[in-house]
Amino acid sequence: MVSVDINCDMGEGFGPWQMGNDAALMQYISSANIACGFHAGDPRIMRETVRQALKRHTAIGAHPGFPDLQGFGRRNIAMTPDEVFEMVLYQIGALQAIARAEGGILHHVKPHGALYNMAAKDRKLADAIARAVQQAGTDLVLYGLSGSALIEAGEAIGLRTASEVFADRTYQDDGSLTPRSQPDALVEDTSRAVARALQMVQKQTVVSTNGKTIGLVSQTICLHGDGAHALEFAVAINAAFKEAGIAMVAP
Amino acid sequence: MVSVDINCDMGEGFGPWQMGNDAALMQYISSANIACGFHAGDPRIMRETVRQALKRHTAIGAHPGFPDLQGFGRRNIAMTPDEVFEMVLYQIGALQAIARAEGGILHHVKPHGALYNMAAKDRKLADAIARAVQQAGTDLVLYGLSGSALIEAGEAIGLRTASEVFADRTYQDDGSLTPRSQPDALVEDTSRAVARALQMVQKQTVVSTNGKTIGLVSQTICLHGDGAHALEFAVAINAAFKEAGIAMVAP
Amino acid sequence: MVSVDINCDMGEGFGPWQMGNDAALMQYISSANIACGFHAGDPRIMRETVRQALKRHTAIGAHPGFPDLQGFGRRNIAMTPDEVFEMVLYQIGALQAIARAEGGILHHVKPHGALYNMAAKDRKLADAIARAVQQAGTDLVLYGLSGSALIEAGEAIGLRTASEVFADRTYQDDGSLTPRSQPDALVEDTSRAVARALQMVQKQTVVSTNGKTIGLVSQTICLHGDGAHALEFAVAINAAFKEAGIAMVAP
Amino acid sequence: MVSVDINCDMGEGFGPWQMGNDAALMQYISSANIACGFHAGDPRIMRETVRQALKRHTAIGAHPGFPDLQGFGRRNIAMTPDEVFEMVLYQIGALQAIARAEGGILHHVKPHGALYNMAAKDRKLADAIARAVQQAGTDLVLYGLSGSALIEAGEAIGLRTASEVFADRTYQDDGSLTPRSQPDALVEDTSRAVARALQMVQKQTVVSTNGKTIGLVSQTICLHGDGAHALEFAVAINAAFKEAGIAMVAP
Repeated sequence: MVSVDINCDMGEGFGPWQMGNDAALMQYISSANIACGFHAGDPRIMRETVRQALKRHTAIGAHPGFPDLQGFGRRNIAMTPDEVFEMVLYQIGALQAIARAEGGILHHVKPHGALYNMAAKDRKLADAIARAVQQAGTDLVLYGLSGSALIEAGEAIGLRTASEVFADRTYQDDGSLTPRSQPDALVEDTSRAVARALQMVQKQTVVSTNGKTIGLVSQTICLHGDGAHALEFAVAINAAFKEAGIAMVAP
Repeated sequence: MVSVDINCDMGEGFGPWQMGNDAALMQYISSANIACGFHAGDPRIMRETVRQALKRHTAIGAHPGFPDLQGFGRRNIAMTPDEVFEMVLYQIGALQAIARAEGGILHHVKPHGALYNMAAKDRKLADAIARAVQQAGTDLVLYGLSGSALIEAGEAIGLRTASEVFADRTYQDDGSLTPRSQPDALVEDTSRAVARALQMVQKQTVVSTNGKTIGLVSQTICLHGDGAHALEFAVAINAAFKEAGIAMVAP
Repeated sequence: MVSVDINCDMGEGFGPWQMGNDAALMQYISSANIACGFHAGDPRIMRETVRQALKRHTAIGAHPGFPDLQGFGRRNIAMTPDEVFEMVLYQIGALQAIARAEGGILHHVKPHGALYNMAAKDRKLADAIARAVQQAGTDLVLYGLSGSALIEAGEAIGLRTASEVFADRTYQDDGSLTPRSQPDALVEDTSRAVARALQMVQKQTVVSTNGKTIGLVSQTICLHGDGAHALEFAVAINAAFKEAGIAMVAP
Repeated sequence: MVSVDINCDMGEGFGPWQMGNDAALMQYISSANIACGFHAGDPRIMRETVRQALKRHTAIGAHPGFPDLQGFGRRNIAMTPDEVFEMVLYQIGALQAIARAEGGILHHVKPHGALYNMAAKDRKLADAIARAVQQAGTDLVLYGLSGSALIEAGEAIGLRTASEVFADRTYQDDGSLTPRSQPDALVEDTSRAVARALQMVQKQTVVSTNGKTIGLVSQTICLHGDGAHALEFAVAINAAFKEAGIAMVAP
């Protein structure tokens, strides 16, 4: 039976501020990436989100980011690999303790925003993150962009990895994501995004913006939690996977 | 053989700023309370301090505080017990991951500054902290002011505790510390402080400001790391304990 | 002609997180209290909120708070009067520069949350805030709880003050607000709140929870911006004031 | 009479942590660049540093930096020009209010660390900073690296600028600083640094690492406040300037 993971960034509020609709989305995903207090999330929200994940049997992951609340972790910060190692380890550890206290166990780590994007290309940062994940727990699964330096770094030290794809983003011929600055970067139509998700999972391919069919390791699909159509897309992709006999399961 | 612990707050710099003389003091103590990033300490300093502790075979403890860098965690903040529980758990977890990555293991937890003082009197805060420690690890030892609500809270849920005393502070007839606002609050003379430490450890008593000898559970002595005479006092108390046949050992 | 001010806390988002419906509410108020980055608000949001206020000819005020994003400035922090003075001055200055850059001018200062409440009772904190406001600009109007130490402190040094009342809160016989912990603390019904506002403004009285009519200096009415009924109440109170011939104008 | 400014970064502690020896250095400089709370400095330290500057008749400048205490503002952060504009304006305004409250007046602005370096090369960031300075006060002098985009940006909008040179750094043939990564980047010897300072000021030239004499606009010399030899160098350069008949005066 074909199976795939659906992951979503969760717990990305801070203090009085909310983001996304975690409670509603949690049942439609198999992996929750929980913000750890640096780009979003505070100890209170982390605990609450862990509880929601446990209630829905969703795998709990750490979602570490740069220390940048105003920029929501989306601004590149020139940290050294050592600083990144320490920062990621700190954030994973914090969530690990909260997860354990609620009777859960940490399952995976997916870096956030600028850290994710930088680690997709910069092997030294990727290595630093992979080592931090390994030190935090050899069983942890490292989530990263399919075909990225982060996946390579994880594999190089023997970590289990999950190659992530985006049903609502388009791809170039070389398998890279079309930059958001380009007009055809996003797939806004739900049915088209669902169709792309099915192809990614069943055939492990995607059609590039040039119309070329390219291979793409697709182990986990990212669901964006804060868009207008987040819930609609979540429901649709769940229904389509069910009909196609694809099991939704965390790696 | 009589034994006692000597603990000291460590890793209380932040970013480019240093505090205390950790490297020199580490060999004269048996327990290091390492700041966890909220009142002081950042992931880089936490890692470096863990390494120094491991090198000197000093027990590694978490030193969680209020989120208040400017006030160095010394200003009371009106957090709820739940918020305190979550905040303490977060900080312990962060240090735990860093300690493990360096091959160490977390041994104890001692709250910092205003959190320590509030938890000495407020049983609900004390309970919240004790529960956080227990959730982070049932083997962790909770350090608190001798005779305080924090020690009671730890014992009430079956935690191992260490009752802390201060050789450089004076005591009232009821066993409480003389407030710093009073002229005779501090013991500035090294030899007098050493003599008091010996009495505290060997006889489990102290002479109050009124000249009364009172009982005082003395399991760990606090060494202040940032004073002018910190190193002098550390050397002197180590020498005195050695001569008196008192072993310095973490609980 | 009778006139009164209607003020509302504004710009209380942070980074990617929004709060309230500033754009819609701005036209129904005469004074905007703009968060200054410590409990909420960042330089980007401050600038955007100043622009909205200028567009609607709403008076621009600073809304300084404790440095506590997670707690949204609602947790008491034990700062000294000097620390409060410096912190308030810093925040006012920051907003002043942004307001001037947009062609505006700062009109008033209203402390936020725990700082507002502490300064209502603690004259030393109130004095510190009043001095900070005066140093930032002798023309600035200090907003504070009607009958509070903050209003007294402002008057004592010759500042113009605006006594604030709450149409959606009930009052005790002594003119103090009924604590939120009590069941009859809030006035949830819009028409009842509007009727109370009219009485407060026209007669400068309010009926206490015991049914006693008491005097109450009512110069500015606080509109809560983040409640479910915020916009409904804003529209209703504007209509009622218009019909009653009460001008809405900043002091 | 030839004159030059000597500037130094000041007030770069935070909370309990100190940096540099501000009190001793203040008398040997004509311009103090005071950190504004983002990379260093808090409202308390800003006020204290303003007082020290006023006592020594040293010109007061704002020293805005990236919001990065751990990295001390030395890590590049990818902010947009608009974000930089708002962030710089915020910091200048905060210091302006504190300076005025102490009876002083803001004289200049010098960006810190990574912001300074990025603005030396990136004209859009430089423009954003120059506009923020202009909006904060048309009389403010913008300090920037001699020959940099920041100086160009200031001049382009009619700001007064001060071209900064470094007596303890070496220069390339094109007038740029030798990167710190190269072995001959620093001038460690005090007498050699003083000689270079004299040449820079008197002849407006410097000898490059290749031995070539190149022109260099030298209006303000940077004194590093946190080095081991900071005070020694300050005393030496003051004596040399006095003997050479060079007046030390802020632009």
